[in-house]
Order: sequence, then structure tokens, then C-alpha cells
Amino acid sequence: MRRIKLTVAYDGTNYCGWQVQPNGITIEETLNRALCALTGEKIAVIGASRTDAGVHAMGNVAVFDTESPIPPERFSYALNQKLPDDIVVVSSEDVPPDWHPRYRTVIKTYEYRILNARVPDPTRRLTRYFVSYHLNLQLMQKAAEYLVGEHDFVSFCNVRTNVEDTVRTIYSLDVLKNEDEIIIRIRGNGFLYNMVRIIVGTLIRVGRGFYTPEQVKEILDARNRKSAGVTAPPQGLMLMKIEYPDGEVQ
Amino acid sequence: MRRIKLTVAYDGTNYCGWQVQPNGITIEETLNRALCALTGEKIAVIGASRTDAGVHAMGNVAVFDTESPIPPERFSYALNQKLPDDIVVVSSEDVPPDWHPRYRTVIKTYEYRILNARVPDPTRRLTRYFVSYHLNLQLMQKAAEYLVGEHDFVSFCNVRTNVEDTVRTIYSLDVLKNEDEIIIRIRGNGFLYNMVRIIVGTLIRVGRGFYTPEQVKEILDARNRKSAGVTAPPQGLMLMKIEYPDGEVQ
Repeated sequence: MRRIKLTVAYDGTNYCGWQVQPNGITIEETLNRALCALTGEKIAVIGASRTDAGVHAMGNVAVFDTESPIPPERFSYALNQKLPDDIVVVSSEDVPPDWHPRYRTVIKTYEYRILNARVPDPTRRLTRYFVSYHLNLQLMQKAAEYLVGEHDFVSFCNVRTNVEDTVRTIYSLDVLKNEDEIIIRIRGNGFLYNMVRIIVGTLIRVGRGFYTPEQVKEILDARNRKSAGVTAPPQGLMLMKIEYPDGEVQ
Repeated sequence: MRRIKLTVAYDGTNYCGWQVQPNGITIEETLNRALCALTGEKIAVIGASRTDAGVHAMGNVAVFDTESPIPPERFSYALNQKLPDDIVVVSSEDVPPDWHPRYRTVIKTYEYRILNARVPDPTRRLTRYFVSYHLNLQLMQKAAEYLVGEHDFVSFCNVRTNVEDTVRTIYSLDVLKNEDEIIIRIRGNGFLYNMVRIIVGTLIRVGRGFYTPEQVKEILDARNRKSAGVTAPPQGLMLMKIEYPDGEVQ
């Protein structure tokens, strides 16, 4: 039995998120079906990040165990023949049998993309959040500084399951401008449920002038979800990569 | 009776092109329906460019006549309430009753976007043409120079209807690199059927080393469609804007 690690990119538009669920087709389930079709084995992948419906990825990570004689690096090619064209296996490789994509120290990088323009662009509607209001970039950048570091991010977490430990570390949080887009790039050792999208929703309120940058520190200190901004919609969010401590970059 | 001019952006993925046709939903038909719903009149727009299935636009132009008292600049807002979110009316304005979007001298700008990378990006699959082969940008740029100017472009035209005059002028043809994308931007006074996509298919052949740049001049001189490269697929193509001689820019 060998363990294979996949790096997976997808357009999340047509899926009910990553995780298998009864009421709709998910990325995980689609990968499982392609692996079963390829190997003849009943395979269930273990994913690193359970992205929500409509959220995209350039480098999510999943592992599975197999008896198949297919060379590890060939899985990506073979799987792409069986997957729909909105899911792409970017690479595949052997890992040790006890290598687990979640129970390890990682650095995850997300990007959230805002189309900040006068009119919406229909060709970007599924991958950008359209905001027509003027957003003050400098204020957003100043507010972002308060969130960098180790903090209790419970104010930036929607309740889903009981997470006992809500302390996380954000290594960097950059607010960048690229033509008519504002890109919020966030690197951290893990993120609570909807945390990136609540941070984005809060930074947008700062950019519009509804919160001062200093109020973001108060929201953090309040340790209360009600104090933060609304959750930004999923389509602007993309999981860019997951870095593992042994130096591998996905 | 007033004539209103619309500037229209759309994601062409889910449409059988611009022009009304019996076997599928088109942009033109969807606009007509929204206008009928808005005004209660039976309205058929006249479009400037009949883009093909899968081709996108940032600034196509259409006009229609109406008795409606809606102020001209309000049509864009009102129509966007009735249109699906993959079609957006960017602006609307009054024009003289004899203003026709096609029978005039115009400058049209198209962009064709190639994702030139090792692996496809599922979030760009509907708006970029994925080419994994190395493309030599300098050779493509050199080849492009031969196409600028007034030429008989019959070698770059797929047969659809009998076009008697196949002479067109290309004002500029730029091959640009932007991160992992190659953007081919072409400005001209009109384009024959599939002309931009055949030029792109031919330039890609140059970029791969199958044609020398000088051969593109030979293809042009041959005045024979069979001598040129294949038609590049529609999803990379976007009609950027149509400039009218009176200085208006759409």
C-alpha cells in the first residue's frame, strides 16, 4: 500500500464545496470517483482544506492510499483524463504512509480578489467580488497590520462546529492593487471557519470608511463575532498554496 | 421615436453567440427580451459585432428605437435588473435616429488571451486558451508586423457568406506578455469571419516554430485560406471596444 499526495486546482463555481455531503456534488467526491474509475479500488481522499461552495483553489492538497502500480507522478495525468475540466490535478507524488495533510504544521496562502470598478465585468463575476464603492487602499492596509501575528480570532469566525482553540497566527496580510482589482493576500498557520472572508468583509468596511483601522484592533480584542464585518461572498476567495514544514511547496 | 445606443459586456460561455438563431439562446435575443419586458414594446436591437459562440465582450454596441419615456442613461441600470448576470449593459445614451452601429467607419479592438503555462488553470478555462508548449514571443511579434496595414486578408477568413471585399486595415497588432499569459491585441477597421482567431492560430504556429515570421507574409500573399494556421478556439477572444469616428469610444 502506497500513499500518494495530489495538488489540486479547481473552479469551485459548480460544486457544493470540497467535502462530501448528501445534497450536492463536491470536489472530494468527484476526485474519489475519478480515482475509483482509474484504479478499480474504492478510494476516499483526505483533503487538507475543506473549501466552501464557490471557493476556488490553485493548490489544495489531498492524499489517498492505493495498491495501484501506476507511477506516482503519472496519477496527475491519468486523473485529468477522467476529471471534468473545472478540476485539475496539478501534480502527484509519493509520500510516507503516515503523511497526513491536516495534522501538521502548515502555512496556507489565500487570495481574495475584489473587482473595484464602476460596472461589473461579467467574465470575472465567478472569480471576483464586485464592489462599486470607492475603497481606500491605505486605510485597508493600515487595518490589516493589526491582524498580523498570533491572536485569538474568535471575532472573525462563524460558528459551525465547536473549535476549542481559536488562536491562530497570520504571518502576512497584504492589500494590493492591480489595475481595477484589489487583492488581499493572507498567509497563516490555519484559518477558522470563514475567517478569511470575515477579515475581507471587515477590511472592505474600513475601505469604505465605516470603520477606522484602529477599530479593527478593537474588534479583535472584543472576542465577539458580532463586532466584525459581514462575511464576504465565496467567489472572490482562492486557496493559493499550502506549504509544509519540510520545505515542500504545494 | 428615439434611438438609444447600448454598450454591452458579456461572458459568451453560455450563449450561441450574438445573433438570434433558432437552435439556442443568444445575447441579442436576451437583450431583446429584457427590452420588451422593460418597455412593453416589441424591440429588436441592431448590433455592431456578431460575436461567435463562446466569444466575450467588454464593449459591443447595439442600438434600438423606442417610444419609452425612460431617460436614455437610465436604460443601462433598468436593463441590468432584468438581464442575467453574464450580460451587463455598461452604458446607454441617445443617438440620432439614423445612427447605425455597423454602416460606419469604426476602429474595433479585440484581445485574445493565451494561458501559456505547464498546467491548465480551471478558473481561467472559459476566458483563456490554454497552450502548454513554449511560445517564442519575439518570433510572434516579428510575424505580427507583416499583418499590420491594409491587406487582402482572404487567407485569414473562413467561408461563411460571400464577402466581396476582403481588404481590411489592421492599425496595430501587439503581442504582449503578462505573467503567465500572452495577450494578442489587434485594432482594425473591420474583421472578416474568424479573422482574429485565424491570425491567432497562425501566430501560435510561429511561436511554436512551425512557421517562420516571414512565412506569415507568404500566407498573406497566397490569398488562400488553406495556407494559414487553424482557427484558435473562441473562449480566448474578447471584443474590447468599438471606436466611432466622431470620437466616441465604446
